[in-house]
Amino acid sequence: MIDLKRKILKAVQDDLAAIEQALVDNLNPHFELVRQVAGHLLFAGGKRLRPLLMLRASRLCGYKARGRTADYAVIFEYLHAATLLHDDVVDGGELRRGQTAAHHVWDPPTAVLTGDYLLARSLSLAAKTGLPEVISVIADITEQMSQGEIRQLAHKGDVHLTETAYLEVIRCKTAVLFQGACRVGALIADAQQRHVQALGDYGFHLGMAFQMADDLLDYIQDTAALGKRAGADLREGKLTLPVIYTLERASEADKQWMKGLIQGGNFTPSEFGGLLDLLARYGGIEYTRDRAAAYIQRAKKSLEAFDPSDDRDLLQDIVDYAWSRAS
Amino acid sequence: MIDLKRKILKAVQDDLAAIEQALVDNLNPHFELVRQVAGHLLFAGGKRLRPLLMLRASRLCGYKARGRTADYAVIFEYLHAATLLHDDVVDGGELRRGQTAAHHVWDPPTAVLTGDYLLARSLSLAAKTGLPEVISVIADITEQMSQGEIRQLAHKGDVHLTETAYLEVIRCKTAVLFQGACRVGALIADAQQRHVQALGDYGFHLGMAFQMADDLLDYIQDTAALGKRAGADLREGKLTLPVIYTLERASEADKQWMKGLIQGGNFTPSEFGGLLDLLARYGGIEYTRDRAAAYIQRAKKSLEAFDPSDDRDLLQDIVDYAWSRAS
Repeated sequence: MIDLKRKILKAVQDDLAAIEQALVDNLNPHFELVRQVAGHLLFAGGKRLRPLLMLRASRLCGYKARGRTADYAVIFEYLHAATLLHDDVVDGGELRRGQTAAHHVWDPPTAVLTGDYLLARSLSLAAKTGLPEVISVIADITEQMSQGEIRQLAHKGDVHLTETAYLEVIRCKTAVLFQGACRVGALIADAQQRHVQALGDYGFHLGMAFQMADDLLDYIQDTAALGKRAGADLREGKLTLPVIYTLERASEADKQWMKGLIQGGNFTPSEFGGLLDLLARYGGIEYTRDRAAAYIQRAKKSLEAFDPSDDRDLLQDIVDYAWSRAS
Repeated sequence: MIDLKRKILKAVQDDLAAIEQALVDNLNPHFELVRQVAGHLLFAGGKRLRPLLMLRASRLCGYKARGRTADYAVIFEYLHAATLLHDDVVDGGELRRGQTAAHHVWDPPTAVLTGDYLLARSLSLAAKTGLPEVISVIADITEQMSQGEIRQLAHKGDVHLTETAYLEVIRCKTAVLFQGACRVGALIADAQQRHVQALGDYGFHLGMAFQMADDLLDYIQDTAALGKRAGADLREGKLTLPVIYTLERASEADKQWMKGLIQGGNFTPSEFGGLLDLLARYGGIEYTRDRAAAYIQRAKKSLEAFDPSDDRDLLQDIVDYAWSRAS
């Protein structure tokens, strides 16, 4: 996994540098406070996966102008950052990217309004592309994401949440953004329709797998490695697939114990340990891994629409890396 | 004033009906809760001034298709509603349009995310126009508005706020939306550049005057007529022109008393009465009225780019109505 990460990072280092520069150059607020609050989150070292996907999707379709692509690519990082700012307010999250969340450093209103600015800025940059299809994709993503977040909030603490409803939430809140980033990469390269479709499919399946891996990590990794508190999802009443699957299969006694834990909203390390045992025993961890693996396979399959090349290999490596996080 | 209002309402009743219908038809969420929360604010009887301005600006430029225009016009009401939802969360406002604010009926996170949906929906509808210039105007408005709100928040309780800084806040938070609505009306009618410019100027000056009138009303009207609590701005630490002007001119003793009131964050009816006396005595009310009147004149002047017509008269009547609210 570490070798794969190193290999990817080496291949994309110039792209990442271009993205970092474009993130600074395009932020462009009238007001210093906006730069500080947005910068607090933006420059705390995210993976830049979404803009990178856009940039490399365009490359796979033959688009060469890296600087310009980076200016478009940051749209996806700004959008992502906007949702993180609002999510942290909504969930009361304390840590983000290993540091105190913006709504704690400043206050929730400032975090909400800075999120609005980043959302607006994304759409403003999208408008600047002058490509109606690109603008539509980005506007549609924001619409879906906000609905995904509302759906997730409405399901908070709902122990009857089904796998289908969970899939719909992660589709809206994560997969549509990955899908849109890859699709827009193909669109700005003026790719053939089948390639636009293939890269959209690639992004969608990668996004689903990525979110499932993220949801798994909340149970299989510790706070230091996560950059936020382990078990945070459940503490916030956010039921993810490992728990949903386990609740459906657990004995009545185990189910009642889990419900108590979920509805209590907090738990001791030893209770969290007990939960992890149940997730392992009833197969919730394993099942989530299998479902993620299926999306991973479909993401790879989508790339078969392209001839073999180094650019295609890189997108495949990114899939493998996303997968390695959860395995 | 009542006669003028009746005259305007009679002239625009079909437009308002088309706007109401379009507000319902274009909301279109996947998720019932979104419809409920957005609808709670949207259908509590706003004036629909922003969509109406867009629609009538397009009419003045010769555009005829009312149904289609209404579909575009609602963009400006959705945008406005999005900012109201977020503002009420930010300010902790209790009443809006005469009823309990959404973040009290549901909760702040739900109100934030529904605001995000309305913002996203506006931009999605803008994208559907397929007109790059329209999309740019709307994206730019959202960007400016979010910065205006942040600036206002940063100035909360700041007794040294200058008139210039106040003007910049109301420009961003109100005037750019009025300006954008009128400009987009002209753009969809494919108007000449000078008419696009004139209608943009009209909207801008009307918006400035409208916000000043609104800020005045908070001091000269009671809670029942306002649909929200009188003196609410100051209670939220929001300094507007009547107070800014008075603070600059008050005696040291009066200034200290006012500062105490502002920084205390709350006041009795008799203290509020004392404040109103100072605003009258030092001319803060009168000065704000004069400044608003100057914007009103400029709004009317902008319309001179057009030949006299019933459509032009109506936009003039709207200016007079906006002015009559503050006088």
